[in-house]
Amino acid sequence: MISFMSDYTKGACPQILQKLIAINDEHMAGYSMDVYCASAKEKIQVACQKENADVFFLSGGTQTNQNVISALLDSYEGVICASSGHINVHEAGAIELTGHKVLSLPSHGGKLCAEETEKYLSDFHADENRDHAVYPGMVYISHPTEYGTLYTKKELSALYAVCRTYNIPLYIDGARLGYGLSADGTDLSLPEIADLCDAFYIGGTKVGALLGEAVVFPKGNAPKHFFTRIKQHGALLAKSWILGVQFDTLFTDDLYFKIARHAVLMANKMREGFFQKGYAFLVETTANQIFVVLENEKMKALQKEVAFELWEKVDENHSAVRFCTSWATKEEEVESLLALL
Amino acid sequence: MISFMSDYTKGACPQILQKLIAINDEHMAGYSMDVYCASAKEKIQVACQKENADVFFLSGGTQTNQNVISALLDSYEGVICASSGHINVHEAGAIELTGHKVLSLPSHGGKLCAEETEKYLSDFHADENRDHAVYPGMVYISHPTEYGTLYTKKELSALYAVCRTYNIPLYIDGARLGYGLSADGTDLSLPEIADLCDAFYIGGTKVGALLGEAVVFPKGNAPKHFFTRIKQHGALLAKSWILGVQFDTLFTDDLYFKIARHAVLMANKMREGFFQKGYAFLVETTANQIFVVLENEKMKALQKEVAFELWEKVDENHSAVRFCTSWATKEEEVESLLALL
Amino acid sequence: MISFMSDYTKGACPQILQKLIAINDEHMAGYSMDVYCASAKEKIQVACQKENADVFFLSGGTQTNQNVISALLDSYEGVICASSGHINVHEAGAIELTGHKVLSLPSHGGKLCAEETEKYLSDFHADENRDHAVYPGMVYISHPTEYGTLYTKKELSALYAVCRTYNIPLYIDGARLGYGLSADGTDLSLPEIADLCDAFYIGGTKVGALLGEAVVFPKGNAPKHFFTRIKQHGALLAKSWILGVQFDTLFTDDLYFKIARHAVLMANKMREGFFQKGYAFLVETTANQIFVVLENEKMKALQKEVAFELWEKVDENHSAVRFCTSWATKEEEVESLLALL
Amino acid sequence: MISFMSDYTKGACPQILQKLIAINDEHMAGYSMDVYCASAKEKIQVACQKENADVFFLSGGTQTNQNVISALLDSYEGVICASSGHINVHEAGAIELTGHKVLSLPSHGGKLCAEETEKYLSDFHADENRDHAVYPGMVYISHPTEYGTLYTKKELSALYAVCRTYNIPLYIDGARLGYGLSADGTDLSLPEIADLCDAFYIGGTKVGALLGEAVVFPKGNAPKHFFTRIKQHGALLAKSWILGVQFDTLFTDDLYFKIARHAVLMANKMREGFFQKGYAFLVETTANQIFVVLENEKMKALQKEVAFELWEKVDENHSAVRFCTSWATKEEEVESLLALL
Repeated sequence: MISFMSDYTKGACPQILQKLIAINDEHMAGYSMDVYCASAKEKIQVACQKENADVFFLSGGTQTNQNVISALLDSYEGVICASSGHINVHEAGAIELTGHKVLSLPSHGGKLCAEETEKYLSDFHADENRDHAVYPGMVYISHPTEYGTLYTKKELSALYAVCRTYNIPLYIDGARLGYGLSADGTDLSLPEIADLCDAFYIGGTKVGALLGEAVVFPKGNAPKHFFTRIKQHGALLAKSWILGVQFDTLFTDDLYFKIARHAVLMANKMREGFFQKGYAFLVETTANQIFVVLENEKMKALQKEVAFELWEKVDENHSAVRFCTSWATKEEEVESLLALL
Repeated sequence: MISFMSDYTKGACPQILQKLIAINDEHMAGYSMDVYCASAKEKIQVACQKENADVFFLSGGTQTNQNVISALLDSYEGVICASSGHINVHEAGAIELTGHKVLSLPSHGGKLCAEETEKYLSDFHADENRDHAVYPGMVYISHPTEYGTLYTKKELSALYAVCRTYNIPLYIDGARLGYGLSADGTDLSLPEIADLCDAFYIGGTKVGALLGEAVVFPKGNAPKHFFTRIKQHGALLAKSWILGVQFDTLFTDDLYFKIARHAVLMANKMREGFFQKGYAFLVETTANQIFVVLENEKMKALQKEVAFELWEKVDENHSAVRFCTSWATKEEEVESLLALL
Repeated sequence: MISFMSDYTKGACPQILQKLIAINDEHMAGYSMDVYCASAKEKIQVACQKENADVFFLSGGTQTNQNVISALLDSYEGVICASSGHINVHEAGAIELTGHKVLSLPSHGGKLCAEETEKYLSDFHADENRDHAVYPGMVYISHPTEYGTLYTKKELSALYAVCRTYNIPLYIDGARLGYGLSADGTDLSLPEIADLCDAFYIGGTKVGALLGEAVVFPKGNAPKHFFTRIKQHGALLAKSWILGVQFDTLFTDDLYFKIARHAVLMANKMREGFFQKGYAFLVETTANQIFVVLENEKMKALQKEVAFELWEKVDENHSAVRFCTSWATKEEEVESLLALL
Repeated sequence: MISFMSDYTKGACPQILQKLIAINDEHMAGYSMDVYCASAKEKIQVACQKENADVFFLSGGTQTNQNVISALLDSYEGVICASSGHINVHEAGAIELTGHKVLSLPSHGGKLCAEETEKYLSDFHADENRDHAVYPGMVYISHPTEYGTLYTKKELSALYAVCRTYNIPLYIDGARLGYGLSADGTDLSLPEIADLCDAFYIGGTKVGALLGEAVVFPKGNAPKHFFTRIKQHGALLAKSWILGVQFDTLFTDDLYFKIARHAVLMANKMREGFFQKGYAFLVETTANQIFVVLENEKMKALQKEVAFELWEKVDENHSAVRFCTSWATKEEEVESLLALL
C-alpha cells in the first residue's frame, strides 16, 4: 500500500547506510568523542555560518526538547509555546516531568504571534503578584510547525526581538527543518535561522536519517556541562558516532537539502493535484505536509488504498487528513494517489 | 592500533547491517508498533521461556536503568545497589534526577551480598524512625558486574529470596548479559535469569547491535503505561523498528549467544596468555572483561600499541587496567597483544 | 485603615491562642504523634461522619495541594482543573515541579463543568494517540472557588459521577471551606463534601487559625506512606501539635462553623449595601468574597481609606475589585465601608 | 514524666507567645511582606554584622535544607555531606526528590574533614570520566552536628577555604545554631559563621520558637527569585509574619542567645553529673546534646521515669542514649535525672 502517513516511515537515505557499512569495522571513541561527530559539528558550523556554534547529537525530538528546555530554564521558569506546540500536546508531559510548566498561547496555524507574546510578557511583568506565578523563561516554536506552516523572516525577527527585549532565549524545534528551508517562497535560510534564535535543532529522524537530531547553540552558548546533562537524562549513546556519521553524511555535498527539496517537490505535485480537483485545504502549507478536507465517504474509500493520518473532524460529513511526503517519496506514489481522487 | 578499550567501539555485527539494508525501503509503523518489534518480542519470550513476558526496546543502558527504576519505585522509595553499581557512580545522577536515592551497600567484586542486603532491609524495618528515611523499594544488580564478575545461581537465588521476603522487585542490568551467559562455568541460563528477577534488560549496544537494549518484565509485570512513561522520558524512537529489527536478528538462530561466546573465547585466550606470563589479576573473571595488574612502565609501553582502559591505581608502581573483548574481536588482535607482553 | 484585603490578614481566633498558651509547658511528642493531633483527627472524623477517614495536618494551601496531588497521580498523569484554578495560576508551578501537567478546562465563574469534563475524558480515551499525551489522572476543584462561587450538590454529584466513571479521584481545595459551608442557600454540608470526593482539605489559615490545613481522605484512602511523603516534601513540622491543637479547638463546640458563619453574615451585610447603592457585581457570590465593579475614580478614592484587592480591569473606566470578610471582621468595619460608598 | 527527648518538645518561649497575642488583631500584609519580617531581617543583619545579608523565613529544617540546596545546585550537581548528615539519613530523600545526589564522605563525630573534602574534590576533577559522574556542587555541614559536636574556627575556616578553591558554596544547617554558639569553649561567633559560609540558617523550632528557621545568605547572595522558589516548593506561609514576629522577638535584647545559654548551662550540669558518677560518653560534646553509654538494664530502669532517645547499640549489654536540654529545661528536672543515676 502507498503510504503518506508520515516522514519517518522508512529507514535512512542510501548514502547513510553505505557510510555506516563502510566504517563498521573501525574502532571508535565512545560518547561522541569520535571523529565523525567532530566532522559533522564542523560541517554544521559551516552550513550555519557560525564557526563558534556548539553542536550536540541526540536521538529523537522529544528527547531533544526535554534536554534543551530543561537546561535553558531556571527552576521557577516555564516555556511559552503555541497551544498546538508538540511539547504541549504530544510529548506525554516530558517538559513537566522536568519540573517546568508549558505556558500556552493561541496557535495561529501552528504559529506564535509576536504581538501576543509581547503582550503576555508585558502583562506578566506588570502584575504585582507575578512572584506567585510561573516566570516565562523562554519561547519554544517549531519550524515548520505541527500544521506544516512556516514563519516568515519578518515574523521570526519580530518574535526574536520580543525575546531579546525580555532577555529570554528563543528555541526552534526543527524536527522537519530541512523541509521548511526547502519550501517554495520561504525567505529563511539556515544561517538566518541560526541568527534569529538562541538554540535550535536540525531534524534528522524525519529527514533522511535512521535516527538523530543535531542541537545547535549558534552563539557558542551551550548551557554549562550540557554533555553531563545529556548523560544524566539517559540521552547519551555509547556509540554516538552513529549519529555523527549520519549528520556528517547529510551535511556533505548538501545532501540534507537535496533530499528535503525532493520531498517538497513531491508535496508540490500533490498539492497541485488536490487543488486541480477542487479539494479544500485545512491550512495553506508550502513544505512537506498537506492538510486536505475530505468527505468522510471519500476518506474511507481512500484509506483502503493509501495510508495517511486523520487529523481532525471538520464537521459531521468532513474530516481533515494529512498527507506527508519525505526524502523517500517516489513520484509514482504521488501519481497513484492523485489517480485515486 | 589494536583496541580492547571497550565492547562498544565497533558498529554492528554484519547480519544486523544486512537486515537494516534489506528492509530500508519498507514502510514501517512508528513508535514500536511495527512487525519487527513484535517478532523480536516473541523471540525473546521464547528464549526466556516466558511466553507472557513484556518486552520493550530502548536505546542505551543509562536510559534503560532510569526508565525501569523510576517506574518500579514509588516516590518515597530508593534503590539498593552495590557501591560500585553503574547507577551509583557512572550515570551522572540519572536516578536521582527522577527523585530517588541510590542506597549503596558494600561491593564484593562488584556484587551485592544477599546476607548484607537482608540485614539492611531487616534493620530498616526494625527502626522506629524509618518513616523519616528513604524506603528501600527495589534492588539493582548488574550481571556481569562492572568488575566483570558473575553471580552464581545460588547467589542470585539467595538475593531474589530476600527480595521476595521483603516484597520488593529485583532488577538486573544486563548491559553485557550475553557475555555473562556465555562464560565458562556459569550455571545461569537466560530462562533462569528470567525466573530469578522481576525485570532485566538484554544488552544490545555492547553485544553486537548499533544501539539498543531489550527490557524484559518476565512475569508480564510491566509497570502500568510503561509505553507512555518511555515517551515521557524522551526515550521513544519514532523509528523504533531499528531496535526491533536488531533484536529480531540477534535472537534468530542464536546469533546473540554465538557472538557473545566468541568474545568469551577471545577473552579466555587472553586470560590464559596473561596467566602464562605471570601477570596478576585485580579480580577473577570469566566473561569478556579482564582486569590485569601492570607495572606502570609496562603499562606506558603497552599504551603505545594497544588501547585499553586504566581502571585504578594499585600502588605507586602498579596499575590495574581493563582489557575488553567483544563480538568484533579478532583472534590475531589477541595474539598481537600477547606477543607484546 | 479598614482592610478587606483578604481573609488571612489577622492572627488566630482567641480560643486558639488561649489553647496554645495553656499547653505551652507540656512535653509533646513530635511529628504529629501527639494527643492533640489525635484528638483533632477524631473530631474531624465525627464532623465528616466518616469514622475511618485519614486526616493529616499541613501548613498551607499550596503545600497541601502539592502533597496531595503528587501522591494521587502516577508519574504519567496530569490533573484536570478550571483555567482559573489556584494550582494553575497562583502557585508558581508547584504542581509541575513535582512532574505533573495541569490540564486546564474552561472556568465558569471559577467552576468546572461536569459535562465538559466528561467530554474531555471521553475524547481523551477515544484518541488513538493518547499514549503520547498526558493521562488525565484526577480532577481538582476549589470550593468555594477563586471567584467565591459554590458548587451545588447537583453539580458536585455530577462531577464526582464523571470521576467515578473514569476511575480517577476528585480532590477539593477547601482553603475557604468553612465560608462555603456557611453560606446562605448552599445545599452542601461537610459530610456531603466527604461523600462526594476522594480527598479534600479543611482550610485553617483563612478560617481562624494561625496556620494549618487539615487534609482528609474520607474513605480511609490515604496514599501509601503519606506521612513519609509529607516528610520528603519538607512539609512535616517537628512541632506538628501546633496544627493539631488548632484544629482540635476549631472542631470543639462548632467553633469552625460559628466563626465562618460570622464572616458570611458580615459579607451578606456588605453585599446588601453594595446592592442597595446600585453597584454591579462581577460574579454572584454567597460566601465571604464579594467582587464589585467600581468606576476607577471611585476605586481610587476608596483606596485611600479601605484596603481591598484590585481583581481585574473591566473596561477603560471600570475595575472589578474584591472585598473579603473573615472570622475577624467587625460589623463596624463593614458599616464604615458602606458609609463611604 | 521528665523529658530530655529532644529540644522541640515544648511550645515557645513566653516572650514569643506574648508578642503573638499583642499583635493578633493587627491587619498584616501576607507572604512575608509585613513589618515584622522586615524588622527581624534587620536585626539578624545586625547580629550577623552583615548589613546586606538576604534573610528569608521558613517553617522547618528539612524544608529549609530542600529549598536552599536545590536553589544553590545546578541540575547536574550533588551536595557533599558527612555520612551522618541529616540530609543523608533523616529527611526521607528530600534532597533527591529535587533531583540531586547526596555525596557522602566519612563522618568524624558528625563532622566533615577539610582534607578529605579537598581530596574528594581534587580526585573528582582529575578524573577523565568526571563528565559521567555527579558534579560536587556544594558542601553541607550542620553546626552543631547531629552528634552534638562543634567545628572550631580553624576547622570551619579550612573547610571554607576548600570550598573557595573549588568555587562551590558552603551551607550550614543551624537547626541548633544557638546552642552551638553558646557552648563553653567555642571560638565561633554568629558574625564569624556568617563570614565563613555562603548560606546558613538560624534554627528557631529547636531554640524557642513555635516553628521557624531564618535562612541567611550573608553576602546578599540569595539565589535569583528565591521568594518564588519558596512559593513553588509550597513553603511560603500566607501568614508569614508569625515567623517574622518570632525572630523579631528572639533577636531583641539577645533573647535567642540567653535562652540558648540556659540550655547549655543545664547540659553542663547534666554532663558533670554523668561524669561524676563515672558514665562514659559516646562522643564529647559541649552544647545541648549529651550522648551517654548505659547498661541496658540501667537504661530500661531509667526509661520508666525519664524520656530520652535510644541512639545506637554499643554492644550486647550497652546502649548509647541521648539527653537533650533546651530553652525550656528546668534545673530541677536535671537534678531529678541525676538523682536517678
